[in-house]
Amino acid sequence: MAMLTDEMMSSDSNAPEDGDEAIVLLADEVTTCAQTCLACADACLSEEDVSELAQCIRLSTDCADVCEALGRLLPRLIEPNKDVIRGMIELCAMACDRCAEECERHAERHMHCSLCAEACRRCAEQCRSARQSFI
Amino acid sequence: MAMLTDEMMSSDSNAPEDGDEAIVLLADEVTTCAQTCLACADACLSEEDVSELAQCIRLSTDCADVCEALGRLLPRLIEPNKDVIRGMIELCAMACDRCAEECERHAERHMHCSLCAEACRRCAEQCRSARQSFI
Amino acid sequence: MAMLTDEMMSSDSNAPEDGDEAIVLLADEVTTCAQTCLACADACLSEEDVSELAQCIRLSTDCADVCEALGRLLPRLIEPNKDVIRGMIELCAMACDRCAEECERHAERHMHCSLCAEACRRCAEQCRSARQSFI
Amino acid sequence: MAMLTDEMMSSDSNAPEDGDEAIVLLADEVTTCAQTCLACADACLSEEDVSELAQCIRLSTDCADVCEALGRLLPRLIEPNKDVIRGMIELCAMACDRCAEECERHAERHMHCSLCAEACRRCAEQCRSARQSFI
Repeated sequence: MAMLTDEMMSSDSNAPEDGDEAIVLLADEVTTCAQTCLACADACLSEEDVSELAQCIRLSTDCADVCEALGRLLPRLIEPNKDVIRGMIELCAMACDRCAEECERHAERHMHCSLCAEACRRCAEQCRSARQSFI
Repeated sequence: MAMLTDEMMSSDSNAPEDGDEAIVLLADEVTTCAQTCLACADACLSEEDVSELAQCIRLSTDCADVCEALGRLLPRLIEPNKDVIRGMIELCAMACDRCAEECERHAERHMHCSLCAEACRRCAEQCRSARQSFI
Repeated sequence: MAMLTDEMMSSDSNAPEDGDEAIVLLADEVTTCAQTCLACADACLSEEDVSELAQCIRLSTDCADVCEALGRLLPRLIEPNKDVIRGMIELCAMACDRCAEECERHAERHMHCSLCAEACRRCAEQCRSARQSFI
Repeated sequence: MAMLTDEMMSSDSNAPEDGDEAIVLLADEVTTCAQTCLACADACLSEEDVSELAQCIRLSTDCADVCEALGRLLPRLIEPNKDVIRGMIELCAMACDRCAEECERHAERHMHCSLCAEACRRCAEQCRSARQSFI
């Protein structure tokens, strides 16, 4: 959400002050991760060894779905539903880690898996940084 | 997903046998609950006491987002990502309970809040029934 | 959304009167179609001829995404954004037809493709029935 | 999706060459716009004049839903479903314009409406730039 939502948060006196930066960064990571996962799943479908990539496609799609759900909850910051957001952040880190583990197995052969694993690891790390803003 | 996915599961020898019915019922409940929450939020926006319904609108929208994310994960049953699905089911039950609690506060004045609370309670209950299929 | 939203619409004097039934039926069809498409894509990934099913998986996933987006717009009926909903209904019919055409090519070999094509054709037909409610 | 998907596209010989930059920019704009719309809707709910902002909240939520649906279709670039993507791009421009028009009416009083209108206008413009990549 970058600049615009960043400004929006600053312009809103009710928004949480602590952890704002971690939340804004997470909102960026989840959307980057979701789109990278969807692009990786699509690229996998054109590979000759697609049957070996079936689980990679499934975990990437799951990861994209969880990232997007978190990306919808995060901008509602005025009276945040803290338990639900924190639960979704933890789930997102788990889905990212699962996808990264599988993508890393194919990373030497497929650049898209290497890039997807990298996006997932960054997103999982940012989930862990932002989690404390919702305690 | 009702009949079609029900048949699809039966036609697929790899799909999980135990708990199929609980999963099919949950897939129906999450979509009903999501659409009921979105309709309730929309109806709240036209009420005279909308400012008192702000939190109801937020929790309904959160609940719809979590229900829909679960509704995307559930149909991928061949090699289910069990930890992630189970986590999402638990989160969905929590989001439904939060929304139901708030809607129940307005249920006497607004029929849509009463119906939404009912849908959320049913969905949360079905989450708890289906959860054991992913252990 | 079935019974609950149906009741909700009836309890709301502002909701559109004409075409209510067509809209309620469409809200059901899009969610059934979305979940059937996701289940078909998942089942395709386990087939031996998965490389021949790549386009089927892509079109099913696209179709699910369009159906779900329409499923989010439909419950906001009080002051409907008619041009946008009508455009999404037309797009949904197109995505369903594309997916059905591809699934029908594999319907003899794979029961899930046959069921998915059927769900898509029903959804496309319901899109055409409900479209006139938003003119 | 920025850098990662940008690299992914470059690493993939099957991806469309023309218009890549417009598509990557659009993928960024739709996610920024979706999150800005969701944040604006949430901020509107806390304003004293929330009853006058009801339509703003509805159009922002519709806009976010259409932007997100487009954000799911765009990363599937290997064998793009051109008619469906082009239709969704046109619909997204329309939803953004509708939301911007409404937000602009409240832009003097509410900074979040001003920022949301700006995000919507930028996204609609990028829709028009990227549209030709799918003809």
